[in-house]
Amino acid sequence: MLEELKKKVYEANILLPKYNLVTFTWGNVSEIDRESGLFVIKPSGVEYDTMTPDDMVVMNLNGEKVEGKLNPSSDTPTHVELYKAFADIGGVVHTHSSYATSWAQAGRSIPCYGTTHADYFHGEIPCVRCLTKAEIDEAYEANTGVLIATEFERMSKNPVDVPGVLCKNHGVFTWGKDAMEAVHNAVVTEEVAKMAYRCEVINPNVEAAPTELQDKHYYRKHGANAYYGQK
Amino acid sequence: MLEELKKKVYEANILLPKYNLVTFTWGNVSEIDRESGLFVIKPSGVEYDTMTPDDMVVMNLNGEKVEGKLNPSSDTPTHVELYKAFADIGGVVHTHSSYATSWAQAGRSIPCYGTTHADYFHGEIPCVRCLTKAEIDEAYEANTGVLIATEFERMSKNPVDVPGVLCKNHGVFTWGKDAMEAVHNAVVTEEVAKMAYRCEVINPNVEAAPTELQDKHYYRKHGANAYYGQK
Amino acid sequence: MLEELKKKVYEANILLPKYNLVTFTWGNVSEIDRESGLFVIKPSGVEYDTMTPDDMVVMNLNGEKVEGKLNPSSDTPTHVELYKAFADIGGVVHTHSSYATSWAQAGRSIPCYGTTHADYFHGEIPCVRCLTKAEIDEAYEANTGVLIATEFERMSKNPVDVPGVLCKNHGVFTWGKDAMEAVHNAVVTEEVAKMAYRCEVINPNVEAAPTELQDKHYYRKHGANAYYGQK
Amino acid sequence: MLEELKKKVYEANILLPKYNLVTFTWGNVSEIDRESGLFVIKPSGVEYDTMTPDDMVVMNLNGEKVEGKLNPSSDTPTHVELYKAFADIGGVVHTHSSYATSWAQAGRSIPCYGTTHADYFHGEIPCVRCLTKAEIDEAYEANTGVLIATEFERMSKNPVDVPGVLCKNHGVFTWGKDAMEAVHNAVVTEEVAKMAYRCEVINPNVEAAPTELQDKHYYRKHGANAYYGQK
Repeated sequence: MLEELKKKVYEANILLPKYNLVTFTWGNVSEIDRESGLFVIKPSGVEYDTMTPDDMVVMNLNGEKVEGKLNPSSDTPTHVELYKAFADIGGVVHTHSSYATSWAQAGRSIPCYGTTHADYFHGEIPCVRCLTKAEIDEAYEANTGVLIATEFERMSKNPVDVPGVLCKNHGVFTWGKDAMEAVHNAVVTEEVAKMAYRCEVINPNVEAAPTELQDKHYYRKHGANAYYGQK
Repeated sequence: MLEELKKKVYEANILLPKYNLVTFTWGNVSEIDRESGLFVIKPSGVEYDTMTPDDMVVMNLNGEKVEGKLNPSSDTPTHVELYKAFADIGGVVHTHSSYATSWAQAGRSIPCYGTTHADYFHGEIPCVRCLTKAEIDEAYEANTGVLIATEFERMSKNPVDVPGVLCKNHGVFTWGKDAMEAVHNAVVTEEVAKMAYRCEVINPNVEAAPTELQDKHYYRKHGANAYYGQK
Repeated sequence: MLEELKKKVYEANILLPKYNLVTFTWGNVSEIDRESGLFVIKPSGVEYDTMTPDDMVVMNLNGEKVEGKLNPSSDTPTHVELYKAFADIGGVVHTHSSYATSWAQAGRSIPCYGTTHADYFHGEIPCVRCLTKAEIDEAYEANTGVLIATEFERMSKNPVDVPGVLCKNHGVFTWGKDAMEAVHNAVVTEEVAKMAYRCEVINPNVEAAPTELQDKHYYRKHGANAYYGQK
Repeated sequence: MLEELKKKVYEANILLPKYNLVTFTWGNVSEIDRESGLFVIKPSGVEYDTMTPDDMVVMNLNGEKVEGKLNPSSDTPTHVELYKAFADIGGVVHTHSSYATSWAQAGRSIPCYGTTHADYFHGEIPCVRCLTKAEIDEAYEANTGVLIATEFERMSKNPVDVPGVLCKNHGVFTWGKDAMEAVHNAVVTEEVAKMAYRCEVINPNVEAAPTELQDKHYYRKHGANAYYGQK
């Protein structure tokens, strides 16, 4: 069932340690098949170097396991809520990547200080608040996804233009049209977090890049007038 | 004698350079066989890449060598005291891992700024004081272990819930149910130290993660109601 | 056509990931054949590990493609302007290397704090301003090159003695007598950016190295009285 | 001539890139044969990965080449002065290793913040002043060595107990009983520089480790009562 998708999701998961985004099992990737409404996700707590495509778990959007011998990632309910709220995304990644998580722990959104950031994220990478005790007790992982969706709605952010978020005192979620693009955006988030950190040390009064430069770079790579690459 | 344990301890030691926790010979791992009261530890000052399982040294809890052609790690008396004081632990690691030792040199406990930390340590990773001149002169290494045990007692910390400590101006000790888990906790300590360092630079007014979030993550992975992983 | 140059440019591009100067496709190298007025450059958005010498694109100094099945780097017009303005250079590199880009994002020139810097750059590595909205709208990439040339003119800097520049909120351009030397200078810029960053943290009141020391090191390696190396 | 020494010096030089202490050719190692008064040193500006033991250069303590087809390192006169002034040393290393050079650029000695430092250096790693214009013009490299020797004399530091120094706005020299120990001390200097840097960020009011702890660790590894290792 969904053998090809399992392979893709497996390969996307394997990229997390390759790109130094995870220590041990601190991360997971999923991708959804929008037609059937099923998605494939990493099993919980399984090491990347012993994992096989067959270990991937098939889930539906009610959060029920459809196929797979292992338990799905404990963060599965967050993936469910993101797929339900963000109709245009096809892949989701969760990491505790080091610099981006440092921003999350600091409770700060990452300002757009340059074109590396603007090439992939239109505007800052937002940091959403902690869940309340009531939200944690009710359904921690699902409410994490609900909060992200609600906050994007409130901030009028299009998840396609802002393909990632920091969760205060926790870590990073990124997404994309598929698992591979979501991993790509996880790498970008970490690189951007690293440079924003250093840039504030070098110049404590630094300001965000001018809007016209942010727009130029974002639309050089995205939308109808994009001219970067071979398309 | 204890051939299997020697192999396990050897393999756990070999992980220290693999995880970039040590430079040269600046670290050691041991594991105890609680039944016989004997533990196996790395020999002193021997390079990781030439070491073999046969070089491991077997010790008893009086700090006497029971088997082995080499001298045990100079930190052996610290391991002895930790095994004697903390009945529920089975493995001990000592490193000078770079970020965690920077916190130790700074004389500060590592606050719990996020879930990466809370997944493994319940509350801050404490930094205990330097030994006095009298304590150093009397029995430096043994008194290091005695101090850790005394301080955990005084702070009412359960070593199972707080599986590591910083020693001021020195380095890191971690432990676990066996050598492998102790190494695992040494990796966690270094990652957590790294992110806490950066997080304070990003937000000098950062506060510890809310207690309810710390509890949620710690008990998601530990105790009767844990649901992370495949168990 | 220009087969040997394509091979050289390919090999210089491949060094960017090897020296950890780029993530994904965030960089490009070109080299010019001054006799024919043609230069060879990396194709846009192509991954380094699948690229071959045949993928290189041949351009003229009017910015027209002369040979090649792929689109040239989107930064090609910047390379054109640099070759036109700086008659003595033969290779150009663009990267978003992490520390140097952090300085660019901070909008600061890198002061010469030591001999590592002085061995390759005579004086600070300048950071030029952002383009205006009008300059961006008219011709973003070409105007980036025009701005660099104009600013070097205004600051009376000889591009041979100062073989690189930071572009505010963007990244790094370096150059040299050929592609390989330009890559070499990109590595130097990143190393120097890293040490200048740390050096200001260690001593917030640090000042530039004395002029006589800067001169000594620069002229030990460059010009008529150089005595470093085997020449 | 001195074939075995050439091989040793070659192998010690090759360790510099292996331990990430040098970029390109920014470093050199020598070792002296005290009986003949000849020392062997790396050739100037030669890449580590193409170099062979035969490329090593044999010099005498007048700074004259005795054997070798290549020019010796441009820093050779510094090595000469160190061998002449410090009778008990047998090997010298020069690097621009990243963290240690950041301290040198900042013009600060590295305080002894912990036992990692105290295990190898008795007290701080001193930073000596820049040469004056007159000293540079007269004999830059030789006077660098003379300055180091004079300053150690003035500060009453025994070069055996303090096997390294920072040169303001420049880089690092370390030494030891032979080339290999000098390389070892170069690694220690870089690790110690890294942790001291971070430690001051974590606690801006940090103070040096207590003298009794410094002494304990230094003499645990050195001198008549040492008990670390297998000797």
